[in-house]
Amino acid sequence: MPLSQGPAGGPVLIVGSVAYDSVRTPFGEANEVLGGAASYASVSASFFSPVRLVGVVGEDFNYEHVAQLAHRDIDLAGLRRSPGKTFRWQGYYEYDLNQAHTTATELNVFQDFQPDLPAHYRDTPFVFLANIDPGLQLSVLDQMRRPKIVACDTMNFWIEGAPDRVLQVLARCDIALMNDAEARQLSGESNLIAAARKILNYGPGVVVIKKGEHGSFMMSRDSYFIAPSYPLEEVRDPTGAGDTFAGALIGCLARSGDTDDEALRRAIISGTVMASFAVEDFSLNRLFRLTPEEISERCHQLIAMTRFSSS
Amino acid sequence: MPLSQGPAGGPVLIVGSVAYDSVRTPFGEANEVLGGAASYASVSASFFSPVRLVGVVGEDFNYEHVAQLAHRDIDLAGLRRSPGKTFRWQGYYEYDLNQAHTTATELNVFQDFQPDLPAHYRDTPFVFLANIDPGLQLSVLDQMRRPKIVACDTMNFWIEGAPDRVLQVLARCDIALMNDAEARQLSGESNLIAAARKILNYGPGVVVIKKGEHGSFMMSRDSYFIAPSYPLEEVRDPTGAGDTFAGALIGCLARSGDTDDEALRRAIISGTVMASFAVEDFSLNRLFRLTPEEISERCHQLIAMTRFSSS
Repeated sequence: MPLSQGPAGGPVLIVGSVAYDSVRTPFGEANEVLGGAASYASVSASFFSPVRLVGVVGEDFNYEHVAQLAHRDIDLAGLRRSPGKTFRWQGYYEYDLNQAHTTATELNVFQDFQPDLPAHYRDTPFVFLANIDPGLQLSVLDQMRRPKIVACDTMNFWIEGAPDRVLQVLARCDIALMNDAEARQLSGESNLIAAARKILNYGPGVVVIKKGEHGSFMMSRDSYFIAPSYPLEEVRDPTGAGDTFAGALIGCLARSGDTDDEALRRAIISGTVMASFAVEDFSLNRLFRLTPEEISERCHQLIAMTRFSSS
Repeated sequence: MPLSQGPAGGPVLIVGSVAYDSVRTPFGEANEVLGGAASYASVSASFFSPVRLVGVVGEDFNYEHVAQLAHRDIDLAGLRRSPGKTFRWQGYYEYDLNQAHTTATELNVFQDFQPDLPAHYRDTPFVFLANIDPGLQLSVLDQMRRPKIVACDTMNFWIEGAPDRVLQVLARCDIALMNDAEARQLSGESNLIAAARKILNYGPGVVVIKKGEHGSFMMSRDSYFIAPSYPLEEVRDPTGAGDTFAGALIGCLARSGDTDDEALRRAIISGTVMASFAVEDFSLNRLFRLTPEEISERCHQLIAMTRFSSS
């Protein structure tokens, strides 16, 4: 991954939640720390490409966190500050770190959020619609001028509550990302390959199914790519791993501008590596102290750990 | 994998159960069909190397099954026929095909089995101790003259019931194979990487942890290899997948005689591919109708599905 020179590619627009999380895992806990799909995805993407963030925070959003995002050169013109409280998520993980247990969600300022993109955001070529109300995802798309690549994520809450709008989003996306449970739920198929095939029929040219510690796979009409996860002996907090993965994926594509099968595979490996860092600490702590050299090193380790030859 | 010419490498000795299985899965059922770790491992290995089988069957063992094994050029001089009934296993799988539920095990002729190797078996260079009483695994090792590579498998039943003997076997093995649950149980570590590291300390130079549909990984003191599983849209019966994997692994090593990291990776991929065929049908049905061309094709597909490049 050509990371050592810093971001050079086309910009990425990311819309999603910016949140305060309270998380407990078997390895510690963190209260009211920076979280949210758009935070993880933006910081992750910022290692590959310039990022334009769309979201909303409340009056309680800490200037220190604004500074941390700005320090990653993330464009915050689309981050609105509204009266009220920042979105909050509270949850915990047991020893099966693939399974988040939500104990409380407060939408707060997200309740009435209507995204209104700054003018210079509207022709961003690469877009990631992180997990939020699919109505808001559609509203962002409606404001964009012919983006080159649109990737989207979703979650069980919207698949149950607004399946029609989720399908509308998928029909307008190039790359659909979701985890294994969401893919099964959306497709009604227990076998993940059958599930991915069905989701391809909803519209996107590429489906990426994330399986937590078991890696991920990508399916398109003519390619299938199996990606491992990076082996970690200690995972402190899996929160945001999927968003970090997706942010790196879209950032990596934007960086080169290539969107062929080779580029998609590289982007998935970049996502894999970035997610492996994110889970090593609570909140975005590990990402904020990450270096391009560390990313390159883990990419090369993954190559060494997966290569094999025939005969 | 150099399969098209048929087996040419050094022979492999395989000891383990030969059984009649009764299995129910969400996709069908089979009653009193050929099974057992040594059956699956031997037939799988026979696609790569000549095989010498050690085991015991009862007076009820069907000549048709003897003929099927012999047809794979498996040396049956070490398969004893004893008074009594053949070993039986009965179990079922629900939609989580990684989890076998045992409803009945009848040791029958295995109860009093004492392996006594034919003279020409004793200098076999490659050995696979499939899952049986670790006391019997040790007895086989005691009868061998300095084998080049010894691989072993075990299961929860022996880890619980005879942990000291399991550790004695591991101390005398080069390659320890087990599934994720067994690795956690044996090591007392929930993280699989930590578990594999601990098992390396028990003696074997290489540990291979099988994770069912999530693939496998190999750890040695200076290498780490992540292998995927072959993606299948239909799995009819996962019984014997791990034994098929292990048989191909030892057979593939024996074929070339190489035991370096490259050779181990190739052997693991061969195991992955052979296991993917085994689960497509009940009993050994798919393996008995498998061709070397089909194996080569799936190996090449796996290469295509996993390759990626940096930058």
